This record gives sequence, C-alpha cells and structure tokens, in this order.
Amino acid sequence: MNAEIIAVGSELLTPFRTDTNSLYLTDQLNQLGVEVVFKSVVGDDLKRLVAAAQHSIFRSDIIIFSGGLGPTEDDLTREAVAEALGLSLRRNEEVLAAIERRFALHGWKMSTNNAKQADVIEGAIVLPNANGTAPGQWVSGKYENRECIVILLPGPPHELKALFESECRERLRAKLPPAFLATRILRIAMLGESHVDARVSPIYKRFCHVQTTILAGAGEIELHFRSSGETMEAAQACVDEAADAVEEELDDAVYSRDGQSLEQIVGYWLQMRGATLAVAESCTGGLVAERITSAAGSSRYFVGGAIVYSNALKTDLAGVPAGMIERHGAVSREVAAALAEGIRYRCESTLGIGITGVAGPAGGTDAKPVGLVFHALASDSGTEVIERHFPGDRKRIRRFASTLALDMVRKKLM
Amino acid sequence: MNAEIIAVGSELLTPFRTDTNSLYLTDQLNQLGVEVVFKSVVGDDLKRLVAAAQHSIFRSDIIIFSGGLGPTEDDLTREAVAEALGLSLRRNEEVLAAIERRFALHGWKMSTNNAKQADVIEGAIVLPNANGTAPGQWVSGKYENRECIVILLPGPPHELKALFESECRERLRAKLPPAFLATRILRIAMLGESHVDARVSPIYKRFCHVQTTILAGAGEIELHFRSSGETMEAAQACVDEAADAVEEELDDAVYSRDGQSLEQIVGYWLQMRGATLAVAESCTGGLVAERITSAAGSSRYFVGGAIVYSNALKTDLAGVPAGMIERHGAVSREVAAALAEGIRYRCESTLGIGITGVAGPAGGTDAKPVGLVFHALASDSGTEVIERHFPGDRKRIRRFASTLALDMVRKKLM
Repeated sequence: MNAEIIAVGSELLTPFRTDTNSLYLTDQLNQLGVEVVFKSVVGDDLKRLVAAAQHSIFRSDIIIFSGGLGPTEDDLTREAVAEALGLSLRRNEEVLAAIERRFALHGWKMSTNNAKQADVIEGAIVLPNANGTAPGQWVSGKYENRECIVILLPGPPHELKALFESECRERLRAKLPPAFLATRILRIAMLGESHVDARVSPIYKRFCHVQTTILAGAGEIELHFRSSGETMEAAQACVDEAADAVEEELDDAVYSRDGQSLEQIVGYWLQMRGATLAVAESCTGGLVAERITSAAGSSRYFVGGAIVYSNALKTDLAGVPAGMIERHGAVSREVAAALAEGIRYRCESTLGIGITGVAGPAGGTDAKPVGLVFHALASDSGTEVIERHFPGDRKRIRRFASTLALDMVRKKLM
Repeated sequence: MNAEIIAVGSELLTPFRTDTNSLYLTDQLNQLGVEVVFKSVVGDDLKRLVAAAQHSIFRSDIIIFSGGLGPTEDDLTREAVAEALGLSLRRNEEVLAAIERRFALHGWKMSTNNAKQADVIEGAIVLPNANGTAPGQWVSGKYENRECIVILLPGPPHELKALFESECRERLRAKLPPAFLATRILRIAMLGESHVDARVSPIYKRFCHVQTTILAGAGEIELHFRSSGETMEAAQACVDEAADAVEEELDDAVYSRDGQSLEQIVGYWLQMRGATLAVAESCTGGLVAERITSAAGSSRYFVGGAIVYSNALKTDLAGVPAGMIERHGAVSREVAAALAEGIRYRCESTLGIGITGVAGPAGGTDAKPVGLVFHALASDSGTEVIERHFPGDRKRIRRFASTLALDMVRKKLM
C-alpha cells in the first residue's frame, strides 16, 4: 500500500511557513512499510480541497489530511472530504458533549463556532484528541475498486503526533502486511560530501535492499541506511551489513553509529576518560562552548572558558603573551596554541581548545584571508595545531571551525 | 493570475528532506502580485508526474516545476511535461553544444547521460543556466481556453534562484498587470504570541488591504505586513499605516522595524553610544556571545567574556566571591549581579552581562526549578537583575535567556 499526505491551510502557501508534519508522518508510515508517493499543500478553499481529495483517491491507498479541523469558517477539511467521497456530514452529540466538557474543564466558555468541530463524516471512526478540541476522523471505504483509508488529523504538530501514535499507528498496522523498517545513521566529521560519496557509493550500491541517503552540513555528513523486512531481525541485519561495510571504509572519520551528535560523542569520550575541557575562542565567539553545553549533563566534563575577541582579553583571560600577538598576529598558529595552553592552565582542565581565525566578511588580507582558522588542542602530551582555510560565509566558517575543534577532542580521546 | 509549484524528486518524499525552493518562489511570485494556490511534491515517476502536470493545467495559470532536470534516468520532468501537454521533445543541438562547452571549460569529460539535458519541449524558450548544466524551459500555450505558462527550473537552490531572477522574473512581469508588493517586518522581544495578538489584532484588522502574519520563536515575534498596489508608493503607504499603528501600540517592545535581527540592533546601539560589552555566562554556555558575534563587525563593540560553568571559574574568571556562591547558591540574583559586575570590571567594558540559571533537564529543585534564570546587566549607573521562569526544554530555555539578556542591553541604551 502507498500513501499521500495533504497539508491544509492558506498560511502554508505563504513564503513564511512550511509543512513539517509530513516529515513526521512519512517517517511513521515508512516504519509501517508504507511509501509516501505524493505530498501537497492546499489553501482554505472548499473547491480546491474537494478536487485535491478526489485526485488523491485515484492514486493513493492511504490519504492523510493535516489541518483544517479548527472552529473557524476557514476550516473546511471535514466538509471537503465528505463532499469528495459523496458522504454526509452530521453533528455528533457525543463528540459535542466531549468538546463542551473540555471547555468547562479549563473554565472557558465554548463559542458557537466550536460546535462544527463535532461534525462527523458518515461512517467515520472518531479519533479522540487529548491535546485539543478537534478530534481526528478515520474513514474507510472502497473507491476505484480499491480499499482506501482517509485520515483527518489536526494541524498543530503536538496534537497530530499524539493522535497518530494513540489512534492511527496500530489501526494502520492491522490493515497492512507485517513490515519492519530498520535504520542506521552514520555520522562523519570533516570530510567533503563528494569525497565521501565517491568512497562509499560503490559499497552501498552492492546492497540493493538498503536505501541510502547522504545529508551534508558544514563539516558534518550523515549517511542514513534504511531497509524493510518481514521481521525486525532480518531488516536490521540488512542495514547493519551495509552500514558496517561503509564504516570500515571510512574508519575513524565516522564519529557516531547510532545517531548521537558530535557534542554528545565528545561528552561521552570526556566522561569515559575522566577528562575535563575548557575553551578559549576568538573567531568562533562562543560557538564551541555553546555546542558543548547544548548537551544535557555537560557540566560533568565542561568547566568553561573565555571568549577573547579583543587582544587584551587574549592576554588577560587566556595568558597569551602580548609580545607573541605583536610578533605573529592574533590569527596565527602560535596564538592558537597559546590560547589552548593558557586556558587549560587557567581552568585546570585536562584539555584546552584554542581557536583564532578570520570569520569575515571583512578583516581578511592576502596573507590571512577570510576563512583561515587555526585550531589548537592542548593536553599533557603537548599541543596540536590544525590550520584550515574554510569556504563559505561567516556562519559557515564558524560552524566548520567549531566542528573541527570538537572532532580534535574526539580523536585525541578515542 | 495564480500559480502552483511542483517540486520533483523522490528524496523530497523521505523523512529527511523538505522542499524549500517553494518558499523562495512564493515570495518572488507574491512580489509580482501572483498568489500561490497549490504546492505539491512528486517522486521520480513518469506516470505520476504526467498526472500531476495534467491536473495543474486545469487549476493554475502559472506552473513552476523545480527539479528533475538532471542527467540520470530518474530525471523525468522534461518528458512528463511534454507528454502532459501533448508536445514533442527534441534534442536541441545548440543547447547540447553549450553543455559540452561547460564540461570542456572545467576540464571534465561529458558523460553520454548529459546529452538528455539538451532535450527541449516543442515551442519552449530555453532558459540558460549559468550555474549548472541543466537549462530551464519556459512553455506557454492555451489550455482549457486559458493562457497557461509552464516553467521548468533546476532543483539546486542556487541554480534555481539565479535562473528565476535572470530569466523568469521580467518575463513574468511582462505578462501580468502592474502590481507591486510592499512589506514591513516588525520584530518584538519578550512578549508572548497570544498577548501580542490580543493587543494588535484589533488594530491590523482595521487595515483590510494589508495581510498580516505573526511568526513566533522563543522570546521573539515577527509581524509581517504585506500589501500590493498599482504603484510601489501606494502599496508602501498601506503597509506603513498598518505597521505604524501596531508599533504605536507595542511601543518599545518593538526592537526592529526593517527586518534587522536583535543581534544587529544591539550592535547598532552599542556603536551609537560608543559602548562596549562583555559577558559572563553560566547556563547559556556561550550562546549570548555566539549570537552577538554572529553579526559581522561585532569586534567593534564586543570584547569577549567568560563561560563559567564551574563555580571555581565563576570566582576565578568573573570575580564572584566564593562565599557568595556558598551563601546564595550559584543560581541566584546575587551571583548574576556579581557575574555582570565582575566581567565588566575584568574586561574594562561599558556594560557587563551576567547569566545564571537552570537549563535542565536535570538539576532543578523545588526552590530552583528547571527554567529559572537570573539575568543581570551592569553599567556605571548600577546593576539591574531580571528573574524569569521560562517554559520548555533546555534549548528553548537557553534561547529565551539569551534573548532577554540582549534585550536588556537594547533597552538600557535606546
């Protein structure tokens, strides 16, 4: 069986909003072995909604509508689906009573508009919504000689997710042949997308039952492997075989094999080694610290550090000799090393990171162009410095530099 | 005239990728006075693509396809549109020569696959693509007794944008009645969405020609005003009247009226006052510094500061007396003030920010629950401390706290 998702709401046809419910629904449907073959966004317009619903019945087995179940005149999903399927729409007194109770419970007065949220399509199963007033609806019937399921869900993501999980997932599973989807995510730091693809595509192409997707960010790449099977064990074995072969090729560039972030992995290794970390950041301006502390529990291994935008603070907070800055410039291998060593000493941490560079857009010279960054890691075995020239804008350069610094910590400890 | 956008590609039907080209295209079309009435995503499947193209001709005047113009077997947009419109598809020797030249220029060898990128729909205008091998195509004809324009654009966003701007915008404008879209964006800090809506909706509803959209993030709200008119002056006057009325109601909660970010506005005021800023962050872990330094040129007013996750560093880097931490706890009004004052003194800056709180998910107590944050701003006129209890997860709490701290600086200087 295949599925399609129709997001309803004129606000989703503006330049400001995008439909994200469909990503969640696609993941859920894929896990049930159902492929999503079509997605669309329709405004709050009865004629267009009816046409969209009618087209969908001809091409898809499961049709999920999100949104358009509110109490206002603009909320027309119920009306449109009923009309498209040639079914009546009737006020359901039980549902109405439940909505009234919900209002009473919160001490609110129910406006007369809300009564229309109790309109139920002929033959539909009402799906109670614990997080809002609009219940979902499940309509099944035969169209074009095919069993077809039409599901109406509310638009707010937390309502939609809770309702799908409590009311739809098992109901769908009962209609479907047993299928299990296994996934693995490998994460890779500081290798280019085309480089990774060239190395791993000959490998993953050998595994024709495993679907592989490459997603790339600044300095980080995710490889998603997915495979379905009649048992979870069979599906997982397929996925693991492909992922293991790719991991062997990429070796220690793979920093995580179960979806953890680089920040979490760095935290894991710091705790494993009983080590602590401090940072002295110039061009990244706090981004490394912000990323490390985005992980819950980071106070166990991160002590803090300094943001040393001015040269005076490089000396005062991180102990970089003023003469060194004068001799080599603030953006230099020497100053990066001194920042790492100075902050490690100052904070009495096991490891110290020092970063200095030119994030741009201004401030670059021929000798020290925008994108040039020095990354240093100090430990009791000495100080390592990596010089890199990153492409892209200020945001991308800072992101690259912070990723490289975090990855230096990982490689040092693993 | 109205428009619809069809994004092509099976990868856009996975849980990992979302179509963002349509947001850009919607903005561009809106500026030409064209409303987008339907959006869809179709996989790399000829039958489904043909059906989608055929449906679109019946309901929309302008149809833009993005993607599916690559050289592989999966790239089927050209074939599908030709079939849907009943037009032939022929290899164009001029286009082929241009593609070959592009390969030669980069010293690459053209694979035979690439030749299909030179297939042109009967009667189409070829739209040269300066950033990639796949040219766009512009097909116009009469369908259902309506003038209908079908535009094929490549999927990579930088190719699509450049091609739309160079080849499509003026061509479309020539087909349309003169229309100008004026916009204004008001940005508001630290007021709740429902509070803002309750105060301003009676105002903006008076301006029926102005479309108003509220977008909310953690601690920040954007109000978008849009209006079209036959001259830019008329449209702008409409928008300005509505935006000015709303701004008067919200007063100094509005921090920006031309789309600048809070970070840019804080930088503007610091430079206006010839002031400098330093930060001492505990629970935000560098986020305030990272946000300030995300603005280009921030070294003119931001000197740096300390991330003081451990209590020892609160004392050593920001000069908070150890006895004070013992007496009041690290998360306290007193320690926030001492952080702000200490870092201001240490960094010799005009202003100092101090932040301490419980970002969670662990570490909360009955007296000091997750979400409790103290924000301090020290200046030569004394130290102000704001205590707030933010809702949400770790990420949201840290975002709220950093926004409040930045907004304290703005209010102090404006």
